[in-house]
Amino acid sequence: MRLNGVWRRSAEELPSGGLRVLDQRRLPFEVLDISLETESDCARAIRSMEVRGAPLIGIVAAYGLVFALQEDPSDGNLEGAFHRLMETRPTAVNLAWALRAVRTSVQTAPLSERAGGARATARILADADAAACEAIGRHGLALFRELHARANGARSVLGNADAPKASAGRGRNTRRISTRPSDDLGRFRVSQHPPRPLQILTHCNAGWLATVDWGTALAPIYMAHDAGIPVHVWVDETRPRNQGLLTAFELRSHGVPCTFIADNAGGHLMQRGEVDVCIVGCDRVTRRGDACNKIGTYLKALAAQAHGVPFYVAMPWSTYDSKLVDGVREIPIEDRSGDEVRAVSGLDDRGLMATVHLVPPGQAVQNPAFDVTPAALVAGFITERGIFAAADLAAEGERLEEPDGRSG
Amino acid sequence: MRLNGVWRRSAEELPSGGLRVLDQRRLPFEVLDISLETESDCARAIRSMEVRGAPLIGIVAAYGLVFALQEDPSDGNLEGAFHRLMETRPTAVNLAWALRAVRTSVQTAPLSERAGGARATARILADADAAACEAIGRHGLALFRELHARANGARSVLGNADAPKASAGRGRNTRRISTRPSDDLGRFRVSQHPPRPLQILTHCNAGWLATVDWGTALAPIYMAHDAGIPVHVWVDETRPRNQGLLTAFELRSHGVPCTFIADNAGGHLMQRGEVDVCIVGCDRVTRRGDACNKIGTYLKALAAQAHGVPFYVAMPWSTYDSKLVDGVREIPIEDRSGDEVRAVSGLDDRGLMATVHLVPPGQAVQNPAFDVTPAALVAGFITERGIFAAADLAAEGERLEEPDGRSG
Repeated sequence: MRLNGVWRRSAEELPSGGLRVLDQRRLPFEVLDISLETESDCARAIRSMEVRGAPLIGIVAAYGLVFALQEDPSDGNLEGAFHRLMETRPTAVNLAWALRAVRTSVQTAPLSERAGGARATARILADADAAACEAIGRHGLALFRELHARANGARSVLGNADAPKASAGRGRNTRRISTRPSDDLGRFRVSQHPPRPLQILTHCNAGWLATVDWGTALAPIYMAHDAGIPVHVWVDETRPRNQGLLTAFELRSHGVPCTFIADNAGGHLMQRGEVDVCIVGCDRVTRRGDACNKIGTYLKALAAQAHGVPFYVAMPWSTYDSKLVDGVREIPIEDRSGDEVRAVSGLDDRGLMATVHLVPPGQAVQNPAFDVTPAALVAGFITERGIFAAADLAAEGERLEEPDGRSG
Repeated sequence: MRLNGVWRRSAEELPSGGLRVLDQRRLPFEVLDISLETESDCARAIRSMEVRGAPLIGIVAAYGLVFALQEDPSDGNLEGAFHRLMETRPTAVNLAWALRAVRTSVQTAPLSERAGGARATARILADADAAACEAIGRHGLALFRELHARANGARSVLGNADAPKASAGRGRNTRRISTRPSDDLGRFRVSQHPPRPLQILTHCNAGWLATVDWGTALAPIYMAHDAGIPVHVWVDETRPRNQGLLTAFELRSHGVPCTFIADNAGGHLMQRGEVDVCIVGCDRVTRRGDACNKIGTYLKALAAQAHGVPFYVAMPWSTYDSKLVDGVREIPIEDRSGDEVRAVSGLDDRGLMATVHLVPPGQAVQNPAFDVTPAALVAGFITERGIFAAADLAAEGERLEEPDGRSG
């Protein structure tokens, strides 16, 4: 990730042994590092959403277990901390996955080696997360390259889809990317209109702030931009917590063109042909490919289907839950405090962080934090092991659960 | 409308001849009346959204023309003011309709009678608007009564739809509304479970604040509540201008149970069976029934279709535009300032109105204010002349344009 021109990670070990993370509640208004040194620091950071994003939550929980074992490596504390940390956010499957990985790695170790062993596992998980995101980016890059070519190719024969020869006959007036060599006086080398950017819509923040590095849904965008593919991103505000501000902050920080929109605008933009592809992250995906993600994702997936816009879910395998099938029935949806809807924070006229209250205290508010997008609406899952159709997830998941599966 | 226990109108003539309206930019935080006395007062009030809602905008524009003619009743000023007022909001068809009605009524009158004639017309328009909303409420009430019975009827045989006898055999344990008289010791008079409220979702504000009285989409809700039908309303926040706050304010003011939600939540609620019916207002409806309404309406209509939830549009005939057919292609969509998205106003910790800035000034923002819901997604149009399917709108519209059609 690139922040203020420096390449770093969202979660990094400090010399003290603590974990340095960014306080995401202050972003994008203030860039403030905080250090987590104890189990309760980690639990608070997760619960209060100082850290958020399923993969990052998993890493912070893993370090929470490390810190707990530094204090008291007993079986009782291992189990106690495991369960306390597990309860900080009910929806994220990575949280459970990371905690189990750390517990399993030290369960049979002597007490004196547990903290060290747990830390070694937490580091492996963090490195694996960064590597998984990088791989998601590479697979997504190939997809975006193809979609970009298609978006521009489709325009060059606009209205002539069945008449390629007639189109070719229109000569210089057609938009196209010529394959002529550059020494041909450049007359056709540069098309009359620059290639149209790939129009991408994303919801919530599935960038490097939500992971250890790169991000999930944003990783292919960063790589496409770096590879010279013109991209433009529609960034959903993502009420009530406005994580779109984080996404816009990340994209600006990396130099990617983007436009911030209200959550209500996406259907209209798709209806007007302004979106080529949707890509979102996920918190949990079932065997059949039902994807749980930030509230509002489902509405965009419905609109994408209505307009033939491919809807992709970036999915590190740690968010795959092989025990669930029907996401709508089986995935518990976290109902968060109505206060998240009632008040909004930003900068006041003096540039200081401030909060305004929109909804009177007596007014009932319901705040479901996630929704489930049924598999039928998902064009593909972009994972560190390639892009999979929903129907192929279960088979790949089983391969993955075989011995040495995760090394593949 | 009921405000602080008093029945009044959203727009009322003052003894001075000016027009009293509520400053909606301050609502629901402060209830402040403002008086409009000149054409430019009216233009400013519309442009700055001190007044909003298609029907109310029409009335305020009509009075704007009255005030202009009081200053200068010349043909030049009549035309000038007509066009200046027409440009204050491009999407609302009522605006054009009301302005044309006033102009037509005075065009051939002597200069000395123009201001008075315009005022008489403006009063007629205001009274007609209130009457139309009341009629929409009555037609919608009948619909809601039926939907409520169906929502409860469906529940009483839940899981036994094909076995009514078995269901009846369960006696007191089945949910039902008994028809036994009240002197029967009351054992069956009150069913064991109170009837489930009719769950209604609405977007934006189409209540009395948007009209002269009653509102459009909210009129049936007020009447259903007053008629003893239990209703509960899911109120969409409606970013970026948060008109859901106005709707919740109105509903609370009338005593109707309601829950405020982020715009992102509606799809999830419909997926979980928590919504029986959607009802929204509209700014313009085409011959074939494409309905232009506040941005985000379309996403809810798509979700309603996906879940078999009937989606109704409350439509005073003044919003019907017989000249348009294909709403997506033909209705111009107003792109409003990105600042509406960038900043949010509410009450600070001291209870004073304050604004916080969410999006940095350099960040691109796009703010389309409306979207178009295609006719195929609309179960019916609730008008002052009854409820119409999209396919029947054009025929009724033609009847209406016959001489004396509007008196029907």
